[in-house]
Amino acid sequence: MPKSKDGVEPDEIDLGAVLSALADPHRRRVIHDLVNDADGSERSCTSFGLDVSKSTRSHHFKVLREAGLVHQVDRGNRSEVTLRRHDLDARFPGLLELIGRESAV
Amino acid sequence: MPKSKDGVEPDEIDLGAVLSALADPHRRRVIHDLVNDADGSERSCTSFGLDVSKSTRSHHFKVLREAGLVHQVDRGNRSEVTLRRHDLDARFPGLLELIGRESAV
Repeated sequence: MPKSKDGVEPDEIDLGAVLSALADPHRRRVIHDLVNDADGSERSCTSFGLDVSKSTRSHHFKVLREAGLVHQVDRGNRSEVTLRRHDLDARFPGLLELIGRESAV
Repeated sequence: MPKSKDGVEPDEIDLGAVLSALADPHRRRVIHDLVNDADGSERSCTSFGLDVSKSTRSHHFKVLREAGLVHQVDRGNRSEVTLRRHDLDARFPGLLELIGRESAV
């Protein structure tokens, strides 16, 4: 059975934590790609082609999840994420467009 | 004679450095206040009411300057900053509005 990992409530998403999460180029690339995917797309954490170790990748997704940028769910032996597009657009209008527009992240 | 401190060229402003600079609440408060001032306003570094030591304040303004968020100039015994509004709006549309809208920074 899929198991959701804890995240933050929509009204607790903190701009400082979001900006800090997005300051890292690997994490920004994940959000950039998710912004440009179809709304609601679920992606495997391994699908972004991040050139980092498994533990570093896990760390990056933990930071993104705890900042409120993604929902993460474990499905058997893989972990999947979705962008919290609605929550983020409601709270910080323009932020996702800004990240999605960046070229060559 | 006023002495400008070094900054980065407009086309070298890096989104990662900007987001990292803005992740800190003191630095975000400075930019928040500058965004909501009149365009081109020059403000003393001491005018933002940051509750930090002088050396910490100097550090924060150095980070903002090196990220390309402000221009800084020394005028005798005080240091003044202006927001690089045009450069930032051209490069990252929507970013300054996002920071300027945040309440209770």
